[in-house]
Amino acid sequence: PPCAASAGMDDGFLMEVCVDSVESAVNAERGGAGRIELCAGLVEGGTTPSMGLLQVVKQCVRVPVFVMIRPRGGDFLYSDREVEVMKADIRLAKLHGADGLVFGALTEDGRIDTELCTALLAVCRPLPVTFHRAFDMVHDPQVALETLISLGFERVLTSGCDSSALEGLSLIKKLAEQAKGRIVVVPGGGITERNLQRILEGSSASEFHCSARSARDSGMKFRNPNVAMGASFSAPEYSVKVADVAKVRTLNAIAKNIL
Amino acid sequence: PPCAASAGMDDGFLMEVCVDSVESAVNAERGGAGRIELCAGLVEGGTTPSMGLLQVVKQCVRVPVFVMIRPRGGDFLYSDREVEVMKADIRLAKLHGADGLVFGALTEDGRIDTELCTALLAVCRPLPVTFHRAFDMVHDPQVALETLISLGFERVLTSGCDSSALEGLSLIKKLAEQAKGRIVVVPGGGITERNLQRILEGSSASEFHCSARSARDSGMKFRNPNVAMGASFSAPEYSVKVADVAKVRTLNAIAKNIL
Amino acid sequence: PPCAASAGMDDGFLMEVCVDSVESAVNAERGGAGRIELCAGLVEGGTTPSMGLLQVVKQCVRVPVFVMIRPRGGDFLYSDREVEVMKADIRLAKLHGADGLVFGALTEDGRIDTELCTALLAVCRPLPVTFHRAFDMVHDPQVALETLISLGFERVLTSGCDSSALEGLSLIKKLAEQAKGRIVVVPGGGITERNLQRILEGSSASEFHCSARSARDSGMKFRNPNVAMGASFSAPEYSVKVADVAKVRTLNAIAKNIL
Amino acid sequence: PPCAASAGMDDGFLMEVCVDSVESAVNAERGGAGRIELCAGLVEGGTTPSMGLLQVVKQCVRVPVFVMIRPRGGDFLYSDREVEVMKADIRLAKLHGADGLVFGALTEDGRIDTELCTALLAVCRPLPVTFHRAFDMVHDPQVALETLISLGFERVLTSGCDSSALEGLSLIKKLAEQAKGRIVVVPGGGITERNLQRILEGSSASEFHCSARSARDSGMKFRNPNVAMGASFSAPEYSVKVADVAKVRTLNAIAKNIL
Repeated sequence: PPCAASAGMDDGFLMEVCVDSVESAVNAERGGAGRIELCAGLVEGGTTPSMGLLQVVKQCVRVPVFVMIRPRGGDFLYSDREVEVMKADIRLAKLHGADGLVFGALTEDGRIDTELCTALLAVCRPLPVTFHRAFDMVHDPQVALETLISLGFERVLTSGCDSSALEGLSLIKKLAEQAKGRIVVVPGGGITERNLQRILEGSSASEFHCSARSARDSGMKFRNPNVAMGASFSAPEYSVKVADVAKVRTLNAIAKNIL
Repeated sequence: PPCAASAGMDDGFLMEVCVDSVESAVNAERGGAGRIELCAGLVEGGTTPSMGLLQVVKQCVRVPVFVMIRPRGGDFLYSDREVEVMKADIRLAKLHGADGLVFGALTEDGRIDTELCTALLAVCRPLPVTFHRAFDMVHDPQVALETLISLGFERVLTSGCDSSALEGLSLIKKLAEQAKGRIVVVPGGGITERNLQRILEGSSASEFHCSARSARDSGMKFRNPNVAMGASFSAPEYSVKVADVAKVRTLNAIAKNIL
Repeated sequence: PPCAASAGMDDGFLMEVCVDSVESAVNAERGGAGRIELCAGLVEGGTTPSMGLLQVVKQCVRVPVFVMIRPRGGDFLYSDREVEVMKADIRLAKLHGADGLVFGALTEDGRIDTELCTALLAVCRPLPVTFHRAFDMVHDPQVALETLISLGFERVLTSGCDSSALEGLSLIKKLAEQAKGRIVVVPGGGITERNLQRILEGSSASEFHCSARSARDSGMKFRNPNVAMGASFSAPEYSVKVADVAKVRTLNAIAKNIL
Repeated sequence: PPCAASAGMDDGFLMEVCVDSVESAVNAERGGAGRIELCAGLVEGGTTPSMGLLQVVKQCVRVPVFVMIRPRGGDFLYSDREVEVMKADIRLAKLHGADGLVFGALTEDGRIDTELCTALLAVCRPLPVTFHRAFDMVHDPQVALETLISLGFERVLTSGCDSSALEGLSLIKKLAEQAKGRIVVVPGGGITERNLQRILEGSSASEFHCSARSARDSGMKFRNPNVAMGASFSAPEYSVKVADVAKVRTLNAIAKNIL
């Protein structure tokens, strides 16, 4: 079967790799990812990808592709117009082969926006839905987890409300224990070959989320150092970050030994 | 007529505002923009927007909406897979109401990639197409301009191969003179209320491109300072940049006085 | 006695706070720091402070002040002229009351530069000297540690050759065990109230290094948003980072409970 | 005479190069700079350099060296303790051979802090003093200029209260006309080989300020990509920016042709 090599649940764990290019998606699958989270703009933490990217990625990989629905970087407090954009993008993503969706929505006081989540979940169904790492921005994570469970989210991505999954490990563990299988708590945020073992052992998680990227120099031989397309420190024009097959494989192997 | 207030060609000039949200698109039109360039991720200089964003923007504004086709930040040297994504996105953008398209493609030695441009233009037609500010990364701008004209691009966006339109003003003027109306040379890059007059007077341009944004604080009352979604300096979680009606109006008024 | 409240070795542990202002130095002492590491430019990871800063800090705090000797940001491969600057700064720092010094020097292949360290140590003596977190850039940390011991450094600051002390914790522990008291291995890099306990328990360290800062808005009422003094994303003009008494106290209390 | 090659007032104009290393200072003089502005931390816009740096620079160059007195990045509203540091640094800089000083001080409402300037000027005398580009942060530049003249500053560095000297050129010209030789208005901020001619012609300035740097790759062969010393986007560990003799020469030649 095509996915035999991938880190499916047969091995007892599942590696999700977030990607923002076809190349990264292909590398992720090749390295053993069991699921793709498809985004644009990882420099901003991931936003809604183009449907052209979804179409081509679906032609190139066989593992499930979950599509990020986030209309912009920044916070998770959305205007009515942004909600309209999100609903339209969910419908289009389903139409173009999404296997699942990922979004987050908060109220201004740091709670899960249940009303908006209910409305968006209705558009997403019957596909599985992951609550975004927006979760790390909530006021009370234990309460928020119960809200997500009652809303019916299949998964929640979290770094334990801290700057990385390793930093927030004790909260991730608490959340996983609290969840008791009612929702899959997926650790993510700064996972590397050097900390994955500790994160899996410390959280008892059966799934994890990473980007496994390395920087690659641009192929351009002629370069104009005087021009930048975006904000000066954010995105070097002549360097591309791509998911790295070797990194994905290493992470996969580490997880296999533990789980 | 709905567009009466906009900076259409009736006034002798046209202001294009690049936006990455519905709010910015609406503000741009309200402030007098004659055309919208629709993007995602302006922090990276603009990438392909989601089709949901295009759908909702088309419902909210009446001025023409040109859609950015750029599958990622960084350089303009594309792999075959990226080209497939770009073609798919062009088709989808046309399907969802795009009034024009914007892309750029270079060879590794800094020339216009004529083969790829020809292929992409074929998918774009009959819509008008603007060559992206990728132009500022070419080795020989005068030669590149002739290439774009022979390929049939309607417009080229440029900051004169320098860090901003003001910095590159003398080259912009030269290019406009060389073009002799065969292609519209659109100055863009760092245009503000303070430099627009000089740029218009110095380039004799009849169209210009700007974002006219100001930063707005997030509406979130509860904030977690320990967590960032993306790269640390690139995109503050609690600040949103939006096109500003007043700024758009001011730029519009300055241009009216000159052109 | 004035230092009674400070986290001296009487409590079995010592907290070092790196500061780049008098206010931070005073706050650090007030919060219980047992030692100050005095720097300029913490945004670059700390460089040689001005002697005026050292003079005033020495008038305001009673805990020992160790002075950073690092002539610029970036790597730790120094030219002959930079070495002359470092030697001159060591002499001046001793003259103006430094209680210890901090520097790092590597060879291009990632080893400790023994020749240069020997020469600089000679200028520093009889003061105690800490080897800088440049240590995290070495090729073989175990070999490098033996080199530092044989050179006679009193301390080495390290995040375990990883992005933070928590990430590099297992290596920090290994190094501390290898050191067997021949040099003090001081964990530092990203230490917060949320991870200090784990770092101390996981490393068995008796000293640790942190900045304990929080951002404070500028006191300026009139602001010019169009001007930035430095690189655009690096140092917001209207926000100042200062060591926070409360943070220092919390870290101090956590350490006291463990050590 | 040693300064024969430098861009002294004999040629009718003077190029000041801001540097933060001995290498840059030497390169600046070699390229024809008539004066050095000595700083640390140019990534933050320049802060007070170490006295060791001043000592060595004074041994290596013959052109006048003006010393930056700025105790930190950020705004120009100083606490009493910061003022003590500044005074101490001024005294030390004079002691170690400074040929002039550079500082700026504002009130919270964006006026020149006359009381503090008077006090600091008293410590600086008899050396010449330049008011820092803090000037670009004032509320009313015309009023502020008169204040500086009445206080007795010899020079003021300005980008015309805009993001670069080219952007603020019309205000620079106005200020120079208003000054009528009572103070030297020195344009600075983003000056390049490509815009110097316009800035000199547009401002009628007889002095200008630039850094003329290019990035140089680190000499380190072994590199640890997992560790950064400072804030992630601010200061690449393996790249050094240094004043470039060729750039300094080119700027010098451009100025000579005009002035």
